[in-house]
Amino acid sequence: MDNFLKKGERIEDLGLNQLKIIQNPDFFCFGMDAVLLSWFVSQRIKGLVHIIDLGTGTGIIPLLLYGKTKAASITGVEIQPPLVEMANRSITLNGLSEKIKIIEGDIKNPGDEMIPNYYDVVVSNPPYMRAKAGLKNNCETKTISRHEVLCNIEDILIFSKRMMKDHGRLFLIHRPERLGDIMSLMRHYKIEVKQLQFIYPSIKKEANLVLIEGRKSGKPGLKTAAPLIVYHEDGQYTPEIYDIYGMKRPE
Amino acid sequence: MDNFLKKGERIEDLGLNQLKIIQNPDFFCFGMDAVLLSWFVSQRIKGLVHIIDLGTGTGIIPLLLYGKTKAASITGVEIQPPLVEMANRSITLNGLSEKIKIIEGDIKNPGDEMIPNYYDVVVSNPPYMRAKAGLKNNCETKTISRHEVLCNIEDILIFSKRMMKDHGRLFLIHRPERLGDIMSLMRHYKIEVKQLQFIYPSIKKEANLVLIEGRKSGKPGLKTAAPLIVYHEDGQYTPEIYDIYGMKRPE
Repeated sequence: MDNFLKKGERIEDLGLNQLKIIQNPDFFCFGMDAVLLSWFVSQRIKGLVHIIDLGTGTGIIPLLLYGKTKAASITGVEIQPPLVEMANRSITLNGLSEKIKIIEGDIKNPGDEMIPNYYDVVVSNPPYMRAKAGLKNNCETKTISRHEVLCNIEDILIFSKRMMKDHGRLFLIHRPERLGDIMSLMRHYKIEVKQLQFIYPSIKKEANLVLIEGRKSGKPGLKTAAPLIVYHEDGQYTPEIYDIYGMKRPE
Repeated sequence: MDNFLKKGERIEDLGLNQLKIIQNPDFFCFGMDAVLLSWFVSQRIKGLVHIIDLGTGTGIIPLLLYGKTKAASITGVEIQPPLVEMANRSITLNGLSEKIKIIEGDIKNPGDEMIPNYYDVVVSNPPYMRAKAGLKNNCETKTISRHEVLCNIEDILIFSKRMMKDHGRLFLIHRPERLGDIMSLMRHYKIEVKQLQFIYPSIKKEANLVLIEGRKSGKPGLKTAAPLIVYHEDGQYTPEIYDIYGMKRPE
């Protein structure tokens, strides 16, 4: 196994059906966002759906969705070659090359491997921050994962709409501060926002993340699911977070 | 006092600076929405502002905002003559005719009494439900207060924009299911959504109301305030609700 890993890499156990993932702290490592988004999606889809994950990074969302759903196929798209290569090794490590396909590609110039009007479900944990002119190194892996250097919300919506079946569903996680942009652009591209779920670090704090479900050509009418609170005031995770991570709740 | 009231009317004490309001159960009586909206606004404005309340009904929001802020003037606009008359008697009852003015008017055809680009703050607790073709009696007071028979969200935004100073602020309470419409229309009319606060009946339930702050010509960037939970799981109000109503928290 050792020569399977490159310098600086480690294998993490996802605590879900023995699934494992390769991570490298020099790159962007997956965080709670990917776990929350995968949970949100897995609560809302069923059956043999075809899923595509835009900006899949190290492949965390395809792996978690494989573990939590009965998807017929899961495709991850990633623009950065070192991450594609690493994600592919994680898929091999789990013996899932038949189920999960990682494609190197740019959603603004998609190649033939991605099929328009094919996917039931599009998922994305995109960069949250606007691109800033002053960024020193726009090519750094972490910068690309966090800032809208190579693609922005609008690019994701245009591509999602093109890839989804009619009435297909789009699932995003983002910062609430971008919700004005997201909701008006989704309306513009006729992907109707059907559900929101806000994530609050504690019950006394502002939301810092929001989970979003949209439907291509959906009718207006939106539900805002019960608040998801991450920490109790004593700093312990809430029972909901223990459940989402598949951890045993403390006594 | 008795011949001041008409048949079916009663006087309610608002529990705030001895303010009182006339209510008639045959009409639409004020609910928690008006109390929450007034609280939300009073937390966010200061100084000698000019406020206008669209669809003021029995005048509850002007009275609560008078009690909770230092507004220079408060104007309530109402289209239904019996409510205008009743609101005016409530203002007289409180001796506030110098501070609060109730205008009979249609925001789609505003008269000279309302001054464009004058108000610092626009407030509205509008009808929540779409107008339905099948409504039996579109002229009933309760129907007009609940359904978008005489004005809809877009009418309110057009009028708000016209009445507000540049960078003036709009405060609304509405149902989360309408948020897709509201946010895309606000963006369209360049009233940027700056804050949301969701109200959840309990911590395990979907939000049933949302408080919204917009700013005319505001920059994008939205905060989602801490969740407001109405009931504990045992059915008691939460401490936050006791505080908003100005009631003493139970021991």
